[in-house]
Amino acid sequence: MTENIAIPPPSVERSRDARTRLGGWVERTPIRRWVPEVEELTSPDDAELFLKLELFQRTGSFKVRGAMTNALAAEPDAVKRGLTAVSAGNHAIAVAYAARAMGTSARVVMLASANPARIDRCRAYGADIEFASDGASGFARVREIEKEDGRLFIHPFEGEHTILGTSTVGLELGEQLPLLEAVVVPTGGGGLLAGIAALIKQLQPECAMYGVEPAGADSMRRSLHAGEPIAIESVETIADSLGAPHAAPYGFSLVDEFVDDVVLVEDDEIRTAMRALFTDAKLVVEPASAAPLAAICGPLRETVAGKRTALVVSGSNIDLPTFEACLSGADPAAAERDPRGAE
Amino acid sequence: MTENIAIPPPSVERSRDARTRLGGWVERTPIRRWVPEVEELTSPDDAELFLKLELFQRTGSFKVRGAMTNALAAEPDAVKRGLTAVSAGNHAIAVAYAARAMGTSARVVMLASANPARIDRCRAYGADIEFASDGASGFARVREIEKEDGRLFIHPFEGEHTILGTSTVGLELGEQLPLLEAVVVPTGGGGLLAGIAALIKQLQPECAMYGVEPAGADSMRRSLHAGEPIAIESVETIADSLGAPHAAPYGFSLVDEFVDDVVLVEDDEIRTAMRALFTDAKLVVEPASAAPLAAICGPLRETVAGKRTALVVSGSNIDLPTFEACLSGADPAAAERDPRGAE
Repeated sequence: MTENIAIPPPSVERSRDARTRLGGWVERTPIRRWVPEVEELTSPDDAELFLKLELFQRTGSFKVRGAMTNALAAEPDAVKRGLTAVSAGNHAIAVAYAARAMGTSARVVMLASANPARIDRCRAYGADIEFASDGASGFARVREIEKEDGRLFIHPFEGEHTILGTSTVGLELGEQLPLLEAVVVPTGGGGLLAGIAALIKQLQPECAMYGVEPAGADSMRRSLHAGEPIAIESVETIADSLGAPHAAPYGFSLVDEFVDDVVLVEDDEIRTAMRALFTDAKLVVEPASAAPLAAICGPLRETVAGKRTALVVSGSNIDLPTFEACLSGADPAAAERDPRGAE
Repeated sequence: MTENIAIPPPSVERSRDARTRLGGWVERTPIRRWVPEVEELTSPDDAELFLKLELFQRTGSFKVRGAMTNALAAEPDAVKRGLTAVSAGNHAIAVAYAARAMGTSARVVMLASANPARIDRCRAYGADIEFASDGASGFARVREIEKEDGRLFIHPFEGEHTILGTSTVGLELGEQLPLLEAVVVPTGGGGLLAGIAALIKQLQPECAMYGVEPAGADSMRRSLHAGEPIAIESVETIADSLGAPHAAPYGFSLVDEFVDDVVLVEDDEIRTAMRALFTDAKLVVEPASAAPLAAICGPLRETVAGKRTALVVSGSNIDLPTFEACLSGADPAAAERDPRGAE
């Protein structure tokens, strides 16, 4: 059991309101029915599969929903002083985009190990980027920036507005696909899973909710076993976007309340799923986005057999060499990275 | 001017009827509004861009529409004896799929240079594959198979039912997106362009229709200039699916009647477009599918500025090494191939 959290779960009404405010800054991403045809996966028998194509989102990932929701909810004066964030990549890009959208500036701290495609994209939105060697020093530096410049700090996965933002993915999914029986979501810090689960369980209470973590970054699963958000000692996975080394109170409380199970997948299962999505679904996904497919072909295979199942393809910003290395089985330099402290 | 063709253009009613018969064997592929954000292309000013995601089609390309339409229209006895085709790849895959769908067999001739991903996929659908060193010997061999086995020969781009099949792409597009101002279609033998143009010009007569050919495989453009379908001497392009060395009477007559212009793009423009689709749109496209984007950033840039424009992303079956070579600018061994005689 976790301690009581003062912030209530995002309601359908508040999520709708948030979605309306996001307006044209954020895409209502499409759903695709996907019939795997000739891939190497052992996909679940008779499952009806749908992909929520959040990788087609502005900025290339769902993170823009939380970043924009925070920026739109903040005091105009705070926004005027600029935005700041610490991130392995996708959240930094989203905050850079939000700053441009709000007519202000962004100064973000990225991990030095961030994928080059993410650094390029963040810079293309006009952000001022600093680099940190690891998450701990990155978090320390961003707190300094927050104080020095008076900038609005936007958390990558925790907090009322970040999770209200991610809840809009669940809102769209629940409205786009009636009669869902299972939804599977990539899980790092847990913000995406928390927001989607809260909405789906209100809109379609019969639907089962699953999170997927890399075996080498299992902070949420361990937190659920511990009954409180905990930190893990090490993070080792090719799914750098899922490398959050700890859960956080609000997100954890929602996952604890609304999620049926969080399962683990190995990096090799993620690679196989990435290859199947390349060959068969024609999608360029970063490892995190392939985790749900890996899960339904692995630990959730029997659970979702025969079920109407949605996989959240959460985002993708990846350069060609890393993509090629992931698919071919070479080490995409992930071992050299230390994504500790940010997702 | 071309000679009179006995077969009328596909009407909206016949196309609707064909679409109904295709039923669940063929996907109604989604439309995606695409806002290019941070890519290296000089995309047209203020154009509103939509992608018709036919690469998400069963078999990985639009070819399945023509193959299935032929198979469904044929005498059951003919179908029972099996299907045959000659193809550089995507059409062979489509015919193999159609044979499986109809509960019969396929014996197809593929070019020895066909992309390995296409050979694998064709085999996965259960086809018996023979290889030909070039298109001329491939066509000769398939005519033998047709006689020997009494199989139904399905043409890759010409004929009433093949083009009735491709017309269903135009039907869907015209129904999915009202008020279109321009549609841009990859063009090889011209079957896809002919079918889409015929339908769009009936559904939305104000919409301009454009075909795009690789500069190294410009049979349709030259045919239009000649006023009749002609053959070209050589085919040299990375867009192997667009390597048809000649136009054909019925398809040509429809292009001549319904298409506003056919423009040319260089292979390097196609590579740039493929990179943009990888980085920004998160799509795995084979070169042919990137040709429309190359065209609106090249020869059609001013033409479509400010216009509501649909790009047909026609299909994609490509292996990782070839994909990587196309994007990185290396020669994807296309120069070694001789796609003469089939698309």
